[in-house]
Amino acid sequence: MSRLRLKISMSLDGFVAGPSQSVENPLGIGGMNLHEWVFPLAVWRAMQGLDGGEVNESSRVVEEGLANIGATVMGRNMFGGHPGPWNAAKPWNGWWGTNPPFHHPVFVLTHHAREPLQAEGGTTFTFVTDGIESALAQARRAAGGRDVSLAGGAKAAQQYLVAGLVDEMEIHLVPTLLGRGEGLFDGVGDDLHGLELVRTVATPTVTHLKFARR
Amino acid sequence: MSRLRLKISMSLDGFVAGPSQSVENPLGIGGMNLHEWVFPLAVWRAMQGLDGGEVNESSRVVEEGLANIGATVMGRNMFGGHPGPWNAAKPWNGWWGTNPPFHHPVFVLTHHAREPLQAEGGTTFTFVTDGIESALAQARRAAGGRDVSLAGGAKAAQQYLVAGLVDEMEIHLVPTLLGRGEGLFDGVGDDLHGLELVRTVATPTVTHLKFARR
Repeated sequence: MSRLRLKISMSLDGFVAGPSQSVENPLGIGGMNLHEWVFPLAVWRAMQGLDGGEVNESSRVVEEGLANIGATVMGRNMFGGHPGPWNAAKPWNGWWGTNPPFHHPVFVLTHHAREPLQAEGGTTFTFVTDGIESALAQARRAAGGRDVSLAGGAKAAQQYLVAGLVDEMEIHLVPTLLGRGEGLFDGVGDDLHGLELVRTVATPTVTHLKFARR
Repeated sequence: MSRLRLKISMSLDGFVAGPSQSVENPLGIGGMNLHEWVFPLAVWRAMQGLDGGEVNESSRVVEEGLANIGATVMGRNMFGGHPGPWNAAKPWNGWWGTNPPFHHPVFVLTHHAREPLQAEGGTTFTFVTDGIESALAQARRAAGGRDVSLAGGAKAAQQYLVAGLVDEMEIHLVPTLLGRGEGLFDGVGDDLHGLELVRTVATPTVTHLKFARR
């Protein structure tokens, strides 16, 4: 069974991005603080083609999160660029340069149709305009039996959570406040659809909380 | 140095009480779920005069939280009863019966003056109308060199957090959603005033996150 697995960094006050997100500052004010824990890790550096780095308790969590993923779903806001229809004259091709770190098919939820985008290294971006269930079905087919990663952002995560379609949720809880921004659970309600805390890895800079159905 | 120590249970989505709080349901809809982890513990049962109960990883966290406390500060909403001026004809004397589990001086933040209330077992309730700093100063004097517990609720916690007066903060993070209610960090902003995560105790039903100044 191919599972949909959400992985996301969240502040103690529930935000996954700060306020005033922009092309210059895609994670919003303070949002980068949510990811400081991952940058020193050797496993993260290797994904960016960099040598060196640390191995600590978070390393195996990141490795676990990458294992057995065959496709990714993400929201338009995470793919980014600008709101509204795509600018054909100056196409936005994602934050990740010519060789994005996915190396598998990525499905982007959007209201605006666009031709698929082929990047180097095996990453393709397919733009899905007919909703979250269609995107998930396409991603599952593309994953060939492996799992599908739900990469965020908040609005995409909320839609899949509300629909009860998330099979695993890893919250990287960062012990800091953002005060404002994109709240992960805004509008989700009080139903985790059977997801229960199944594993915690505690470090001084992040607490990894893994939820799954038992 | 007598420290102000906040201890509070919070849902994954940041609430410390559910919606629709009332005399009948003081923690609001779903709010009791935030405290399920503590009820089976022998240390909690003993505080209520009950025998038996479990000893697990949360036990030492609760014991740590009770140690060296000489006085408590709480908000009017936590003391409870009804909003507005006190009803002299039918006085509200707290949720805790004739022998409350504090056994030391308690200072209640309120806009409405009231004579102190003496309960059995060494608990006195003093009603403070001149603000959070006055309540803290009175509690520190009463604590005789020991620490002061900040018992909640959300609004009292927020005021002390914003003022930078909290020296230690223990969040009992419960892996559940409430969806609505009293958000612990509403209006607190992005400043923890030097509080850093210093210790995590992870259990299947609650994650104890202790913050202090290093």
